[in-house]
Amino acid sequence: MAEVTAYANLERQFARLSDVNGAAGILHWDAATMMPEGAAEARGDQLATLAAIGHDMTTDPRVAEWIAEAEAAAGALSDWQRANLREMKRSYVHAAAVPGHLVEALSRACSSCEMTWRAARKASDFKAVAPKLKLVLDLTRETAQAKAEALGLTPYDALLDQYEPDGRAEDIDLLFGDLESVLPNLLGEVMEVQARRPRPVLPKGPFPIEKQREVGVGFMQTLGFDFARGRLDVSAHPFCGGATDDVRLTTRYEDDDFSRALMGVLHETGHALYELGLPADWRRQPVGQARGMSVHESQSLLMEMLACRSRAFLTWATPRLRQTFGGSGPAWEVENLYRLYTRVQPDFIRVDADEVTYPAHVILRYHLERAMIDGALQIDDLPGAWNDGLQRMLGITPPDDARGVLQDIHWYDGAFGYFPTYTLGAMTAAQLFRAACGEVDGLLDGIAGGDFRPLLGWLRENVHRHGSHLTTPELIVRATGESLGTKAFIDHLRGRYLED
Amino acid sequence: MAEVTAYANLERQFARLSDVNGAAGILHWDAATMMPEGAAEARGDQLATLAAIGHDMTTDPRVAEWIAEAEAAAGALSDWQRANLREMKRSYVHAAAVPGHLVEALSRACSSCEMTWRAARKASDFKAVAPKLKLVLDLTRETAQAKAEALGLTPYDALLDQYEPDGRAEDIDLLFGDLESVLPNLLGEVMEVQARRPRPVLPKGPFPIEKQREVGVGFMQTLGFDFARGRLDVSAHPFCGGATDDVRLTTRYEDDDFSRALMGVLHETGHALYELGLPADWRRQPVGQARGMSVHESQSLLMEMLACRSRAFLTWATPRLRQTFGGSGPAWEVENLYRLYTRVQPDFIRVDADEVTYPAHVILRYHLERAMIDGALQIDDLPGAWNDGLQRMLGITPPDDARGVLQDIHWYDGAFGYFPTYTLGAMTAAQLFRAACGEVDGLLDGIAGGDFRPLLGWLRENVHRHGSHLTTPELIVRATGESLGTKAFIDHLRGRYLED
Repeated sequence: MAEVTAYANLERQFARLSDVNGAAGILHWDAATMMPEGAAEARGDQLATLAAIGHDMTTDPRVAEWIAEAEAAAGALSDWQRANLREMKRSYVHAAAVPGHLVEALSRACSSCEMTWRAARKASDFKAVAPKLKLVLDLTRETAQAKAEALGLTPYDALLDQYEPDGRAEDIDLLFGDLESVLPNLLGEVMEVQARRPRPVLPKGPFPIEKQREVGVGFMQTLGFDFARGRLDVSAHPFCGGATDDVRLTTRYEDDDFSRALMGVLHETGHALYELGLPADWRRQPVGQARGMSVHESQSLLMEMLACRSRAFLTWATPRLRQTFGGSGPAWEVENLYRLYTRVQPDFIRVDADEVTYPAHVILRYHLERAMIDGALQIDDLPGAWNDGLQRMLGITPPDDARGVLQDIHWYDGAFGYFPTYTLGAMTAAQLFRAACGEVDGLLDGIAGGDFRPLLGWLRENVHRHGSHLTTPELIVRATGESLGTKAFIDHLRGRYLED
Repeated sequence: MAEVTAYANLERQFARLSDVNGAAGILHWDAATMMPEGAAEARGDQLATLAAIGHDMTTDPRVAEWIAEAEAAAGALSDWQRANLREMKRSYVHAAAVPGHLVEALSRACSSCEMTWRAARKASDFKAVAPKLKLVLDLTRETAQAKAEALGLTPYDALLDQYEPDGRAEDIDLLFGDLESVLPNLLGEVMEVQARRPRPVLPKGPFPIEKQREVGVGFMQTLGFDFARGRLDVSAHPFCGGATDDVRLTTRYEDDDFSRALMGVLHETGHALYELGLPADWRRQPVGQARGMSVHESQSLLMEMLACRSRAFLTWATPRLRQTFGGSGPAWEVENLYRLYTRVQPDFIRVDADEVTYPAHVILRYHLERAMIDGALQIDDLPGAWNDGLQRMLGITPPDDARGVLQDIHWYDGAFGYFPTYTLGAMTAAQLFRAACGEVDGLLDGIAGGDFRPLLGWLRENVHRHGSHLTTPELIVRATGESLGTKAFIDHLRGRYLED
């Protein structure tokens, strides 16, 4: 009975940890949407304390003892309990691998670097932030080394593993190598085809915020979002956050363009539907959480890119947009909006990139961050390496560092190992969507009629309900019949951008 | 140096505790204002876990050791540090006095009783909640006994001490006895005088919510509220909550009457100004917190009752209300609004009571809860005792228990020892306001001109900036030159309700 108690103790400990993380999730949302500006320091204190409490709970020496006891008697556990134990151990090993003083030093270095980065980006002055980024990188490498030893991985894989459990650079190299060999030529073809087509027209505003919100809320409901378990608000940087049964999306409205906010809302709704579809029986346990960043991103990209930027969806959506905004004329035709929402244009900014050029942005960052972690690339050489890389991959060079190496917050906030999950997510989305369309009759017809239930039902069954029970590779194989590859993604790009 | 370290450790521990409590404060506010209904269970888990973490932090055995060490070397501490140590010890002794299983059992009993109470109040069915209230009372008496032993107090004083540090029933008996001997006759006189005056007229609505909010926000700013460190929102039950530098008020608007929401907002603004005026140097420490419930209530009642229901304030406010709501005619005269906002009418409901009859409601509850804690009054006899008491004190009998013993949440939620602080607060407010008016030239003229700076300046200097440095009696003596008494309150009532 001692072993059952050990596992039960773990469940209790991790349930409390989940509460602390949920509390922090709501406080993060509040800071971005509701908090008066004068409360920033107090909120910083609250979040830092909750993070420290969470770290203490995870690395509590009793946790290690309970894990060892529970593992010794794993035969008494159910399949889900064993998966839960595996995920608990993952959390423990990651957290316990790094000494407390290093966690704190890195956290402080990131806060300080991020603040300097905000000013440096505005001034397009990389040198102003370079010393702080050096410190962040040094401490991150030290962290990576500590985790590598505990996990038996390379330092970069140890960082990657934080965002993408069981993700390995070796596998990413193969997949990204494939994309690198195909995408440059494909992009050339796409640009040629696009040049022969009529140029899409931007619908003319202004588009009142309350109308934009009305459309966003309505479309979220159409996709299957449950407003009894979530909200839509406004923040400077859109995100999907919150807590269990309390998923909070944000967007940012522009007066003269409704499409950006709307597509952002549909993207975040994909994340939200995943969170809301996680297994209710395992709500406060690690195995009940989302699988990892690539699967999470696959859910948002599947909804936004695959489902909602399709002709099928726009057939349903366009008349509704026309009606809400009182639009008429050529800009408000389905075909025009489709061309607009699938427009390809190599540009400097990742977050504005289209499906075809987005992987180049990610692969560039992946190569650079691996080199930084390996010690092969120094911070002082980073802007040059960035500009050379973008020139090589997309044939353009940023006019300044604000539109180059300074554009993304990730590295300045210590997030090394995160970038590849965006493109892994895009590939996963394409492979999942192809499988769903193949298995569910009338799925695209449903979308063309504003009925997302067939698609959502398939995602719930094949992705959401599994939580972290399956590993990412297991989940993909079970859902699509094969390991993650580039084919579905490239087929999708060819189909959408070269044909019809 | 070991002693300095012990005190420094305490400061660190209590700063973290303050962060946890601040986080819980924002989550409580969110639950009342923003949270989707489906998140109630998850939020309950989060708040219970934060409460348990806070309890563990307070009762950490190291805290007792540090307190002993710091006390042994208190000579090395500053005056404020010693007061801080005293407040830390108060928290520790209260929390550590009660065994964990009893804390948990009482917390569960309260949650369950409160839920049953909501339904019982709707159905006006005391019997439905009586068994659960019995359990709450039993566990509260057990808690009171445990705290009484640790604190060297009577059980009732031990409960009172939670809300009113150093408050003693012996002192309250004297003050309330005084009121009981004066108020019944005073009420008779007031009703006679009032009967000879013209009956006030209610301004006719509807009053659009956004206009009511505009007035509320404007008046809050006039009183001195800083919207960079707080918000005004809507909730079913108005309150002042939030966290350090982040004070969140709520109100509830009614279409056909702007006065209720407005007076509620002014009341909560009094609480908020206290929170925002606490000593910034001691933000995350016990000594930097508000002194206790009677001082807190004095700040809200001073603003609402003394300052804002005065002719002086209404001279300034009335034309602004007329303009915002487009009102005209006799209902919108200063004198009519003054009569309306100072109308006296014995009634069953405490929260709707006027200044003259409010103490009767509180004194009744005080007698009843003391008898319950002492074991002299059984739950089954409570409704009868309530009705007899109200008949004796105000000459009216509730037509049902919904408007009698079931009206307030406090006991059903385990809050015994809280009620007297309302009337202690009213007496404190009157005594402070009299002192402020006597010391600050032109204070009332300022209010009549919409200038609250003289009043707020006096409150900041004499109340807010002290945090919990002084005890409540010390604070009152230093601010007003005498101990708390009934005279200023009764003089105020006589002046307002019998003269002019």
